[in-house]
This record gives sequence, C-alpha cells and structure tokens, in this order.
Amino acid sequence: MKETPWSLQPPAFTEIEQAATRIRRVLRETPLLESERLNRRLGGRLLVKAEGLQQTGSFKARGAWNRLSLLTSAERDRGVATFSSGNHGQAVAWAAGRLGVRRAVVVMPADAPARKIEATRSWGGEVILYDRNRQDREAIGRALAEEQGLVLVPPYDDRRVVAGAGTLGFEVAEQAGRMGAKPDALVVCCSGGGLAAGCSLAWEALLPESRVWAVEPRAFDDTARSIAAGKRLANASGAQSICDAVLAPMPGLLTFAINAPRLGGVAVVSDDEVLEAMRVAFAEFGLVAEPGGALTLAAALSGRVRTEGRCTVLVLSGANVDPDVFTTALAR
Amino acid sequence: MKETPWSLQPPAFTEIEQAATRIRRVLRETPLLESERLNRRLGGRLLVKAEGLQQTGSFKARGAWNRLSLLTSAERDRGVATFSSGNHGQAVAWAAGRLGVRRAVVVMPADAPARKIEATRSWGGEVILYDRNRQDREAIGRALAEEQGLVLVPPYDDRRVVAGAGTLGFEVAEQAGRMGAKPDALVVCCSGGGLAAGCSLAWEALLPESRVWAVEPRAFDDTARSIAAGKRLANASGAQSICDAVLAPMPGLLTFAINAPRLGGVAVVSDDEVLEAMRVAFAEFGLVAEPGGALTLAAALSGRVRTEGRCTVLVLSGANVDPDVFTTALAR
Repeated sequence: MKETPWSLQPPAFTEIEQAATRIRRVLRETPLLESERLNRRLGGRLLVKAEGLQQTGSFKARGAWNRLSLLTSAERDRGVATFSSGNHGQAVAWAAGRLGVRRAVVVMPADAPARKIEATRSWGGEVILYDRNRQDREAIGRALAEEQGLVLVPPYDDRRVVAGAGTLGFEVAEQAGRMGAKPDALVVCCSGGGLAAGCSLAWEALLPESRVWAVEPRAFDDTARSIAAGKRLANASGAQSICDAVLAPMPGLLTFAINAPRLGGVAVVSDDEVLEAMRVAFAEFGLVAEPGGALTLAAALSGRVRTEGRCTVLVLSGANVDPDVFTTALAR
Repeated sequence: MKETPWSLQPPAFTEIEQAATRIRRVLRETPLLESERLNRRLGGRLLVKAEGLQQTGSFKARGAWNRLSLLTSAERDRGVATFSSGNHGQAVAWAAGRLGVRRAVVVMPADAPARKIEATRSWGGEVILYDRNRQDREAIGRALAEEQGLVLVPPYDDRRVVAGAGTLGFEVAEQAGRMGAKPDALVVCCSGGGLAAGCSLAWEALLPESRVWAVEPRAFDDTARSIAAGKRLANASGAQSICDAVLAPMPGLLTFAINAPRLGGVAVVSDDEVLEAMRVAFAEFGLVAEPGGALTLAAALSGRVRTEGRCTVLVLSGANVDPDVFTTALAR
C-alpha cells in the first residue's frame, strides 16, 4: 500500500496552534457577533463569526497565509500556482504579494464573479480562466506548476492549508470563552472541506464535547453523499448554484479522511434559503455575506441545523459578492 | 448671567474613561479595519471603524447605555422619553429593555426609515411619529416627559450622552495604539454633534496633536455654517438628504460649545458622494453602511478631507439602511 504523502496527512493540533500565532501578525481577529432578536426568533443562542471582514474578504486568507509563510526562500523566488473558484485564489495572490513571492498564478473558472477575478489581479495574481464544465482545474494547475517550476498550493488538500483554516476554530473557541459562551456546535460552509477539517481538528482538542457541522448547497452535496456512502463521490458535471465559492468537484482526500469520522452532520440548503440568509445578515448584523458565506445562516434559519435551546456558532465565511447578486437577495 | 445646568456642561475626561468601563460589559469593541487597496488608491493610511456592527447598529448605543446606566432606581421605575431621527431612539429602547427601565417613549419623524421604526418597537420602545417639517421634536419630547413623569434623554445635549459617544474616540485611540498606528485625524459624521464632541474631548486628552473632523450632508451643513459664523445656525426647514440619521435641526448647545474651538474642520458632501461611499464600503470591507454612516468615507473618497500622506481614522457610524436605499447605492 502506498504511503500517504506528508502534505496529505492530518496536521497535529500543535500545527494549528503554530498557524494561529503565525497569522496573528497580519490577519484579523474577526468579531463574534450576536443578535438578541435572532436569538429570540430561533429560541437559542447564535454567535456569528464575521469572517467576511477577514483580509481579502474570506477565511481563505488563513490557509493561504499559513502555507505561503512556510515557503523556503528558493520557493519564494520561483513562485506559486493554485486553482480556486475565487476566494482561495485572491488569498494566495494577496499573501504572495505581502510575502515577496515572485509570482502567483491562479486558475479560476471563467464564470467566477467578476469581482473575484478583478480582486485576484489587483493583488498581483496572474489569472488563467478555464471552463468549469469541461476542464479539470487541478490538472491545469498541476501541469502549470510543473512546466513553470511553481509550487502548487492546493485550496484544501494540504495539511498546512487545513491547519491555517483550523485557526478559525481555534479563534472562535477563544472568543467564545471570553464571552462566557459554551458552544454546542460550530457550523461551517463546505466545498472541498478544508474549513470543516481544520475546525474539526481544533475543536476536537479544545471543545471535545462539541461538534463541527458542515453545510452545502443542494446541487453540491458531495460531502453529505460521500459521508453517507463511506467513500468520496463527485458532484454532477454541470451542476449550478449561486454559491460560487463552494463548487469543488468532490471532497478532498485529506479533508474527507478528517471530516468523515468527526463531523456532527452535513446540512443541505437551497439557493433560495441562502438568499434569505443574505438578507437577514444585512438586516440583523450590517454584514455583507456572499452566497457561500451565508450557507450556515441559511441552515439555521431553515431549521436544517438545530439551534433551539443550545449555543451555536455560525461562520459567515466570505463577503465577496457581486452587487447584482446582493441586490437579488435584498429584493426578497 | 444664567448658570449652565450641570447636564449641559462638558464632561471631564474621567467621565469618558468611566463610560468606557461601563459600556464594556455590554457593548462591542467594533473592529478597526484597513484596506490595502484603498490605502493605495488614496495615497495614505485609512483605518475604518466599523461601528455599524455595534449593538443596535450604530454608535448611539454608547451614549444611550451610558446615560441609562446612570438612572436612579426611582427613575428606572418611571421610564424615559427621547426624540430621535432613528438610531438614538433604537438605542434608548434597547438599553431601556436591557436595564429594566419601565418605559421608553421615542418621538421619531414620520419619514424615518421603516426599519428604524420597526427596530425601535422590536426593542420595546413606544414610538410616537411627528412631522419633521412642521413640528418641533424636542418640544414634543419635553412635553411628553413632563406630562408622563418620564426622564428626558436628549440625543446629544447631555454630558452623559456625550461622554458615552466619546468612548468611541477612546476605543479607537487604544486600537490604533495596538496596531502601531498614529492617527493624524479622526473623521466622524455630524448631526447634533454629540459624536464629534465626545471624540474631541477624548482625543484632546489622548492624542493632543491630532484633530477630530466632522462631515455633514450638504443640505444639513449647520455645524459648518455655525462654526464659520461663531454662533448656532439652523438648517432650512424642509431640507432633504438621503442621510436620514443626521437631520438634527441645529447644533446642540453643549456640543457646539465643545466642537467650535476643537474641530479640525467640517467637510460637506453630496448625497451622490455618499451613495458612492456606501458602494465602496460594500466592495472593500464587506460592510453595510447607512447613508449617514458613510459620510466620512464619502469625504475621504471625494478629497474633502485630506488623507494623502497621513493616517486617518474614518468612523462608519451606522448600518441601519432600508434595502431599497442600499440597492440604489449598489446600482451605481
């Protein structure tokens, strides 16, 4: 049996702790907010992690910063390549610029939101567009990295990226403690599963009686189906959702291995429930949430994760939404 | 000469410090954010105080909480009355509920945003609507308080309310210190002038080489004109602006006495510049800013306050905007 490469083995908890120290110099401790009205409405205590206020507008800055901080100086001089539906790409381009990495080549779907493509370029990223329904982004990214001598930075299947994402769980546990709250669950969005995996490892160590729950859009419920089946299953080719941030084709190797035995469960929500959640985040918190970032609130509002009579942390994971999509949510 | 009543004398710096301790238990330390792209665009360092994430969605919770915390138990049993274009009213209703104050009667303009009226009611406030162009809100509030034995809580002309607003300046000075930043200016919105006054007193003590600047919408430039004239001047009756949060008829007695000798200056911006600033707050920070809350960013983007080559703190003071107004800003 082939040995699992080091980068695809789960990070130890100490690697998440070290990542938390590493990111503190540059990333933000995003606020953990609470709305008394929403608590009343749902009959429980909701804590909302406003991660859309993070550098580059999503949690992806955590994993990107942690991974790129660990490049050797020779690797920095070569540059990095990645593939991303948009938020990871922005984060890698930003981190590369801040850390003096020579190049950041980002393979993005041609139908990514205009602002994500522009933002990636604004951080100095070299954007290469591909057709999400006909081409394999990972293959393009790997080929590019090999041809041009770049270090490939996967969006989730890398222990350093997962450890970086796990700093969010680490930070929430600290913040909840300072607020005197004892969360019964942490709810995160799920695409490739990096955030869920990192947070699961952090919470296993810090809040062992609590569980991490994942939320997916209906057309991209690969993690829910994969966990039920006990093996990694892909999404249908051509699947559509407004949640452009969570369109990974299937669970990662590393992330699935971490998530399958640890997640409390996976909730699946509709695009309509997501739009309603975006409206509620606007009205109750003054926060912009992109569709993928509002999945968790959608699951809470629709009752697809239980919030009654308990304390639940919802991660609003990103804010990078085009104005027309946001307007659609407000028009409801 | 009549002696100035105690409540209309400027608070000492220690009263702001005490208020900062008092609010810490319940209010939020809202984040101080920075956008590298915006810094690059303006050629200076901008720090954005995301005060729309405060309890009840605006800085008004600071003054309301401080004032209502200082009610005697006999006063709490009677209740409070106030007049407000919306944000102060919400904040008073909310603080009253949390502090066990029996009633909170709020006199609000009939054309206030629907969500501000609803929110005030949702916190248990009794809303009384008046016609902004024909009636005197302060007179209505005073009469009500007298008839019904309520304690009047003015929106800015009260040293405890000003001290509460000053906690924002106090907090920003601390946060900037932690970030290693030395602000050259703090820019705040200005209606009755309470935020400007409280922050001016805090900064005079903490950052004496720095100044507080105020920003008004063009149709409500009473503070700018009053300072130029050396006496308090009113706005034209029937004046209109999308900045519904900053429609006070004229500078306060207490606030003008504090602001006139202390403000670095007063900038005046157009409604159009405000809409553009709302769009930029959405795109660069993932923040919802109501029109009055975006005045400061409008002043920075339009060059009406200088930001080049210096460090400027902009207070985004509130997030309570109706969806249709927000959509108008995004459609630009």
